[in-house]
Amino acid sequence: MKSISKSVFAAVGLASLSAGAACAEKPKAQADIVELLSAYEKALNGSDVEASVSLYDDEGVFMPPNSPSQVGIQNIRSAYQAVFNAIKLDVDFEIIEIVQVSEDWAFARTNSKGETTINATGDKIPEGNQELFIFQKNSEGVWKIARYAFSTTNPLQN
Amino acid sequence: MKSISKSVFAAVGLASLSAGAACAEKPKAQADIVELLSAYEKALNGSDVEASVSLYDDEGVFMPPNSPSQVGIQNIRSAYQAVFNAIKLDVDFEIIEIVQVSEDWAFARTNSKGETTINATGDKIPEGNQELFIFQKNSEGVWKIARYAFSTTNPLQN
Repeated sequence: MKSISKSVFAAVGLASLSAGAACAEKPKAQADIVELLSAYEKALNGSDVEASVSLYDDEGVFMPPNSPSQVGIQNIRSAYQAVFNAIKLDVDFEIIEIVQVSEDWAFARTNSKGETTINATGDKIPEGNQELFIFQKNSEGVWKIARYAFSTTNPLQN
Repeated sequence: MKSISKSVFAAVGLASLSAGAACAEKPKAQADIVELLSAYEKALNGSDVEASVSLYDDEGVFMPPNSPSQVGIQNIRSAYQAVFNAIKLDVDFEIIEIVQVSEDWAFARTNSKGETTINATGDKIPEGNQELFIFQKNSEGVWKIARYAFSTTNPLQN
C-alpha cells in the first residue's frame, strides 16, 4: 500500500456554503474526508472487504463498471468480495478536489493509478481510473461514502 | 428520442436539509432536475453537442469511461463532439433518485438503456449504463450539471 497523494491539497477547497448556523463551514470535514479516502485506498490495496464496507453508509450505493449499481451494505459487501476474489489492486489515489456542499454532504473527485493482478492467472495490467465520491455525515458525526462511481481512464482496447 | 421514465418518481425524495432560511427546502428543484435530465436524454439521442454542453456549469466536469476527466466547457464540448462523431445513441434514462442536499446542490442517480450505433460501421450494440450526476444551481437560479460520471452495467466481455 502506498500513501495517498498529498500533492494536490492546494486544489482542495470548500464550496461556498449557505449562510446561517445550520450550514456553518466545517473545515474539519476536509481532513476527515482525506482520512476516509486514505483508509479506502488502504482497504483496496489490502483486499480487505470489511474495511472497505465499513467506510460506507448503511444505505450507500457502489457503482462498479460492468455491474448493476450495488445498493445497501449487504450488496456492497458481496460486490467487494467478488472484486477481491478476482483481482489484487496496488493503486495510489490522487485527490483532485474535495467540496463540502452542506453541513452533512460533500463530494470528492480522485484519480487512481497502479497495477492490477488477475488472481486466476497472475497477469498484471496497468490500472487507471477516475472516481466520483459523494459523502454523507452520519448521525454520529462520521463521514461515510454515500454514493461512489468510477470508470477506467485507460483508452478503449479495440 | 424516447421520453424519460416516469415510473420511478416514487423513489425521488428530498434529503433531510439543515434547518434555517438559507437552507429552506426547494421542491421545485426536483422538477427542474427532472427537466434537465430529460433535456440531457434528448441531447444525447439527437447527437446534439451544443444542447449537451448547455446543460453543464461552466466549470463542470464530464467523466466518460476510457478518457481522462474533462474539466470545463471547452473540454466537455470536445468530448461530446468526439462521442457523437463515433456513435449514435438511442437510450432511455430511468431516474432512480434525485436528492437535494442544500439550497444550491443536488445529485441524481439514473440508469440508461437502449442501443448504440457505431457510425463507422453501422453496427448496433446494446447499451446499459449507470449514471451519477451532481448538480449546482448557478447565480441565475438555473440547475446545471457540475460533475457527471457513468459506466456500463453490461457484463465484462472476455
